[in-house]
Amino acid sequence: MKKLESAGHSIYFETELAPLMKVIEAEKYSKIFVFADTHTSELCLPLFREMMDDFNGFDLIETDPGEENKNIDFCIGIWKTLLDFGADRKCLMVNLGGGVITDMGGFVASTYKRGIDFINIPTTLLSQVDASVGGKTGIDVDNVKNMVGTFTLPQSVFIETKFLKTLPQRELLSGFAEMIKHGLIVDRTYYNDLKSSNYLQISAQAIYRSVEIKNEVVTEDPHEKGLRKILNYGHTIGHAVETYSLINDTQPLTHGEAIAVGMICEAFLSSNNNTLSADDLKDITDYISTLYPAYRIKEDSFKQLLEFMQSDKKNENGQIMFSLLSTIGKCDYNCRVSEKDILESFAYFNRIYS
Amino acid sequence: MKKLESAGHSIYFETELAPLMKVIEAEKYSKIFVFADTHTSELCLPLFREMMDDFNGFDLIETDPGEENKNIDFCIGIWKTLLDFGADRKCLMVNLGGGVITDMGGFVASTYKRGIDFINIPTTLLSQVDASVGGKTGIDVDNVKNMVGTFTLPQSVFIETKFLKTLPQRELLSGFAEMIKHGLIVDRTYYNDLKSSNYLQISAQAIYRSVEIKNEVVTEDPHEKGLRKILNYGHTIGHAVETYSLINDTQPLTHGEAIAVGMICEAFLSSNNNTLSADDLKDITDYISTLYPAYRIKEDSFKQLLEFMQSDKKNENGQIMFSLLSTIGKCDYNCRVSEKDILESFAYFNRIYS
Ligand SMILES: NC(=O)c1ccc[n+]([C@@H]2O[C@H](COP(=O)([O-])OP(=O)(O)OC[C@H]3O[C@@H](n4cnc5c(N)ncnc54)[C@H](O)[C@@H]3O)[C@@H](O)[C@H]2O)c1
Ligand SMILES: NC(=O)c1ccc[n+]([C@@H]2O[C@H](COP(=O)([O-])OP(=O)(O)OC[C@H]3O[C@@H](n4cnc5c(N)ncnc54)[C@H](O)[C@@H]3O)[C@@H](O)[C@H]2O)c1
Ligand SMILES: [Zn+2]
Ligand SMILES: [Zn+2]
Repeated sequence: MKKLESAGHSIYFETELAPLMKVIEAEKYSKIFVFADTHTSELCLPLFREMMDDFNGFDLIETDPGEENKNIDFCIGIWKTLLDFGADRKCLMVNLGGGVITDMGGFVASTYKRGIDFINIPTTLLSQVDASVGGKTGIDVDNVKNMVGTFTLPQSVFIETKFLKTLPQRELLSGFAEMIKHGLIVDRTYYNDLKSSNYLQISAQAIYRSVEIKNEVVTEDPHEKGLRKILNYGHTIGHAVETYSLINDTQPLTHGEAIAVGMICEAFLSSNNNTLSADDLKDITDYISTLYPAYRIKEDSFKQLLEFMQSDKKNENGQIMFSLLSTIGKCDYNCRVSEKDILESFAYFNRIYS
Repeated sequence: MKKLESAGHSIYFETELAPLMKVIEAEKYSKIFVFADTHTSELCLPLFREMMDDFNGFDLIETDPGEENKNIDFCIGIWKTLLDFGADRKCLMVNLGGGVITDMGGFVASTYKRGIDFINIPTTLLSQVDASVGGKTGIDVDNVKNMVGTFTLPQSVFIETKFLKTLPQRELLSGFAEMIKHGLIVDRTYYNDLKSSNYLQISAQAIYRSVEIKNEVVTEDPHEKGLRKILNYGHTIGHAVETYSLINDTQPLTHGEAIAVGMICEAFLSSNNNTLSADDLKDITDYISTLYPAYRIKEDSFKQLLEFMQSDKKNENGQIMFSLLSTIGKCDYNCRVSEKDILESFAYFNRIYS
């Protein structure tokens, strides 16, 4: 279908992986490893093989699925596996899976023998529209999300909507939150398009638009010194809620569900501390709260949420920084917000469902 | 004294750390961490404070000394310490120590929250003439040296010969091997100068020349695709000998002592498989074997040494690659050598002391 040029590498769309075979041949890799979790090795690897004409010239490295496995212990295991398989610097790692696989596989590849090539084939909506661009790799340490990682670009990225067919609805909804975010921070028309679409039948066009938006932002600011921070909309509070939920809830929120909470809270802050209109706030609140399951930010979690925000890696000099909408389709960054206002946004959020 | 511009950062010589204070002020770091081992915190930190006018605005992170601590467990500990100290992305890590500290500190810094600034103050001769240039960071996994790491440039590097005053003789001799290597691969005059010098009284000029040589090579080939491989002279066999010794000897060889073994063996290979003259081979063999303690490559270690070489990260497609001298002062890379020849070089080495 299309190809998008990102800084130093290509993102291919709906190509049935045709260019991948060419890359592999051109680069003369000494060995190829496919890295997957048990879900994607069951559900996505067969599709991968099919698109690759039953290509079999790789070793499979498999891990257990889920964020809780995106940690340093698993990395050590993969580094050792690569060594055991005799992986040299000229080998290739193909990460086939969601953001956990592309983030952790990217980190392992970017540090194994000081860096080997890797290719990402994101198989969740979230990883297609978000983790696919920007060169961030990362793992969690002590439940602190992405505490360790690098900025390293994959050799290339392949986005195939085919893979989404087996993705649970809840995972689709999770990735959809990032698409809504892309509309909110950059493109009101796109936001309105999404509102009138069905997240269970996402078009390749919409995915392309999201990737394009993220790519534009990231290209202008590869190391998150300025503009890129707008991608953090909904994430300052959302990340804290996600971390809290991961530790405390028996059925933890997905990333997108937590970001949905964060986007509503930060829409409130955008109207309170920035110029977002009351109408826009209502629009965002109504749309997101209808689409996403009800949630309650427990009063006795407030203190811990603030603490999580304090230790967020995006902060500088201890001040919690927000990216806030000035209107739907425009976002400012480096906005200071008081703890009092943050607590008010929690109260606003909880009132929706009361 | 002098300043050397390396790719994207400066290497300062004998400045009494004067520019360091300026960098710290200009960059407005949120927090400063000094990373040292127990030796350098005792012996080098007082000098550091003195040169920095009793500057106290930092937290000290200390580890146990030695290669055996350059591992992932210590990294995890440092990452967590940084987090506990509230380190954000805008903090600075000053690595004060030998190559273990600058390599591990550099790796931790280059991956903590996807990268914070770090400054290296190498305090051993080895780290001043070698680890100071080239942007390699690294740690060992399962006794495999530098199995994991990144290419990340420090913000700047400070070389102060003052620090060498407390360095044990054996450590001086270790670093001196890299200086000899620099002469052998690039500059015969420099090699001859070193031969007529005393390694216990190394001049700042000689250190500067070594750094300059390494910098020239590295600047031409930052990612070790070609030319940079000449720095590997003596290291293909040397690294294997070092690894073996670390595991098996009660008094393991230092890096430089192992490289001295490697340089003699590879001088033999240079005359056998490349154009090094018999006179040059004798010159190198005599000089190095007189300067460095006698050693024996045990027959029953041969097989394991070859295995270590096989898994050396510099190899591609399973072939052991050497950098071999064509004459003293010139080196070729990507030379293929058979196992038989490697074994002969061991025999040659062992004959020196028999
Ligand atoms: N690097 C970045 O820029 C970036 C951006 C956003 C998120 N992330 C990271 O991504 C991670 C979240 O990504 P995610 O939601 O994709 O998580 P994930 O990789 O855990 O995938 C979610 C679940 O879906 C399964 N799955 C994946 N593809 C499937 C398919 N095609 N069919 C059926 N099941 C499938 C997985 O096995 C897993 O159980 C987080 O760790 C986050 O930090 C990174
Ligand atoms: N990054 C690179 O390009 C590069 C190049 C060469 C070597 N290295 C790495 O460097 C390491 C070896 O470096 P090293 O020999 O400096 O090791 P080291 O850091 O272990 O130092 C050797 C010993 O000297 C002590 N010491 C350090 N400075 C001292 C001082 N001024 N006075 C007294 N004692 C002091 C240390 O505590 C240690 O006990 C290896 O891990 C190697 O892989 C890296
Ligand atoms: Zn997100
Ligand atoms: Zn060396």
